[in-house]
Amino acid sequence: MTETTRRGRPGYDQRGILEVAVAAFNEYGYDATSIGVLAQRLGLSKSAIYHHVTSKDELLQLALDEALDGLEGVLTEEGAATGSASDRLAHVLRGAVRVLVERLPYVTLLLRVRGNTEVERAALARRRAFDRAVARLVVNARDEGSLRADVDPGIATRLLFGMINSIVEWYRPGGAEGAEQLADDVLTVAFDGLRMAADPPADPPADPPASFQDIHAAEHISSSARHMS
Amino acid sequence: MTETTRRGRPGYDQRGILEVAVAAFNEYGYDATSIGVLAQRLGLSKSAIYHHVTSKDELLQLALDEALDGLEGVLTEEGAATGSASDRLAHVLRGAVRVLVERLPYVTLLLRVRGNTEVERAALARRRAFDRAVARLVVNARDEGSLRADVDPGIATRLLFGMINSIVEWYRPGGAEGAEQLADDVLTVAFDGLRMAADPPADPPADPPASFQDIHAAEHISSSARHMS
Repeated sequence: MTETTRRGRPGYDQRGILEVAVAAFNEYGYDATSIGVLAQRLGLSKSAIYHHVTSKDELLQLALDEALDGLEGVLTEEGAATGSASDRLAHVLRGAVRVLVERLPYVTLLLRVRGNTEVERAALARRRAFDRAVARLVVNARDEGSLRADVDPGIATRLLFGMINSIVEWYRPGGAEGAEQLADDVLTVAFDGLRMAADPPADPPADPPASFQDIHAAEHISSSARHMS
Repeated sequence: MTETTRRGRPGYDQRGILEVAVAAFNEYGYDATSIGVLAQRLGLSKSAIYHHVTSKDELLQLALDEALDGLEGVLTEEGAATGSASDRLAHVLRGAVRVLVERLPYVTLLLRVRGNTEVERAALARRRAFDRAVARLVVNARDEGSLRADVDPGIATRLLFGMINSIVEWYRPGGAEGAEQLADDVLTVAFDGLRMAADPPADPPADPPASFQDIHAAEHISSSARHMS
């Protein structure tokens, strides 16, 4: 986002206008939402809106940037660049869930973009680049032996995004689960599946395979203990 | 579907008209697709279309029935009613993937319905009833000890549908994976996760927990052997 605080009119700054615009785009569709409709919703004149943004297209651009900057930011975090590929993948999936929850209306809009305008096509290209970065981590994690080889990495990546992107369809802020719990759930299903984990055997086999010592194992154990006592 | 073979005009029967209509609804949206647009696409007069269906609404009804009859049919299969809850859940998830793949355009349309008309609201109610039936199986499978208790069953159900419903976004018929392989993949991720399965220990511990002997274990092993040799 290039600018968030250009002011000059009381009541709304650019950010406030953007929030109302994104809600309207998600409710009615971008094409069906005119600057006139936005002005009505905001209780502003059209010229007051144009004091803050040059066009409806700029609002779309700012909104999609908000989603994409968040997702791309996850890829530049230290946890996305260090450690095993499966650690990096877990970090990125957790970060993606967090961005979806924290920027829900913006990511909702991003996921509905179909490439009808130049702004939309540029956003789709950035989204695809993010998806490819995750797909590479899945391939690397499989190659290092952390992820199973009997599910095609391309299919695995799409199923992961299917789970994560569905969050915009059903998650409501302020519900029972916050972003961190939801991210735990996604990682649990993605890495370990829903099948009941076996109790640790009384005599663990010698040389347990490396794939058992892993990402957020401690969280799972403490989480299980809390829920299953 | 009440009728699929009402004929009277050469070239298209009701089923053929329905297929073209569903493709148009998915491409342009239901509201934006008039009977006139359909007539153009079909190379028919509007009155020729009305020989086969009474209205655009009836086409929508027939299309949504095609998707919902398929999904509800899975629930009435023997495998959905017998065995452990986790066996029944696996059967229903596999069946849902098969219906999505085999009736892709119809389920795509169903998943986009927002409840704007009476036909859409009735379809949404049937879809929610299907979702609730799956949610109950998830709860029952957890209660019988087959599924982990540290992921809320409601969240687990939504993540499962997230994976499965995403198939309409990216699956293309005739691709590398057929419905059965894709169903295998979904069940593998859903039940066992992507983490590399441990090699069976040379000396298995006495009394392996029941949760290790499970749904389609044989498939996994043979599939792993095929891919990982």
